[in-house]
Amino acid sequence: MSRTAALERRLGHRFADRSLLERALTHRSRGAENNERLEFLGDGVLGCAVAEELYRRFPLLSEGKLTRLRASVVREEALAQIAAGLGVGELLLRGEGEPVPRPSMLADAMEAVFGAVFVDGGYAAARQAVLAALGEHIAGLDPEHVAKDPKTRLQELLQGAHRPLPEYQVRSVQGAAHQQSFEVECVLPDTGVRATGKGGSRQKAEQDAAQEVLRRLDGE
Amino acid sequence: MSRTAALERRLGHRFADRSLLERALTHRSRGAENNERLEFLGDGVLGCAVAEELYRRFPLLSEGKLTRLRASVVREEALAQIAAGLGVGELLLRGEGEPVPRPSMLADAMEAVFGAVFVDGGYAAARQAVLAALGEHIAGLDPEHVAKDPKTRLQELLQGAHRPLPEYQVRSVQGAAHQQSFEVECVLPDTGVRATGKGGSRQKAEQDAAQEVLRRLDGE
Repeated sequence: MSRTAALERRLGHRFADRSLLERALTHRSRGAENNERLEFLGDGVLGCAVAEELYRRFPLLSEGKLTRLRASVVREEALAQIAAGLGVGELLLRGEGEPVPRPSMLADAMEAVFGAVFVDGGYAAARQAVLAALGEHIAGLDPEHVAKDPKTRLQELLQGAHRPLPEYQVRSVQGAAHQQSFEVECVLPDTGVRATGKGGSRQKAEQDAAQEVLRRLDGE
Repeated sequence: MSRTAALERRLGHRFADRSLLERALTHRSRGAENNERLEFLGDGVLGCAVAEELYRRFPLLSEGKLTRLRASVVREEALAQIAAGLGVGELLLRGEGEPVPRPSMLADAMEAVFGAVFVDGGYAAARQAVLAALGEHIAGLDPEHVAKDPKTRLQELLQGAHRPLPEYQVRSVQGAAHQQSFEVECVLPDTGVRATGKGGSRQKAEQDAAQEVLRRLDGE
């Protein structure tokens, strides 16, 4: 039995060309033959299959809510968790500098696997694999209670009160490329309320800072 | 002959359910029955079909370059131009407050049309329609000369010089929702070089400011 048999069974797709799946399970830390191009393709395939499923499953939902649902389904943390559950972490080939697969590596490999199924079996096979992996998660979504992200909530709160939008400023960036740590300050220009957030990307640090400002506004 | 016959011919898809196409050609200013949900779906379909085409057409291109190419193909201005060329502007149903279709309306309708083809005929039909509309544009791409956007270029320039990243701050927001005008300042924290940019979105104003900073750095 091949080492990928269990994953193929779980995705409902038996590869005609198994080298595609092996490629999808090879992180760039392993060398030039890696899963990055398949990840690019899989990102598009995943976005389309999830959009189709949400469109069909929630026929009365607005475009705005559908967009938020999709973002919640395909976000890195969610994909990494799904990938871990499918055993992608154990299968992922990586360089010696990467003893433990990071969440971003798992999420990228998950997308690459969908891309590989697409190349091997076409859109229908890829859609089936996406639903095999994410269908349960999608079925459990409550469309009326998709959490908006903190930046969006803060912006809507301020717009609703006719107040100026928050300003975000990068305070510091540390670490080498691909492993940077950002510190961002969020300031409300009219009241001067401010808070600092941290994260592995500027976007995440901004969300963290917005969350903290929301907390302070709640306390007012 | 139906009013959409020419568009259907150009896209290579004859609708079994023409009401789908009519829906795709109805802007929300016309009422509750509009193209927004189909636009959501079409955005995913377009992203997937373009990713597939780029993946196959440029087998040696890196993920980073593929991502930039895709962004250049699906950006609003490009889609609006394609839609105008296909006659979508003349077909677009809209409310009386919208005598002339704006570029964003054309781009959204183009996506909605791809979504409608997908619902009517499946992925293969939608892919064919995307290529009928965008294939010539994609074939003309020079993968080695995709212009990076100004923010990316500025960031890479600074990172290459081991300098801190630029900071962007919203200076003012004017106008009602959906027609806002943003003024953003871009500052280089180490040297204090700064410039102001304007645009119809925060993102566009940031790009404009980054472009101006690049211009000043070029002059140094």
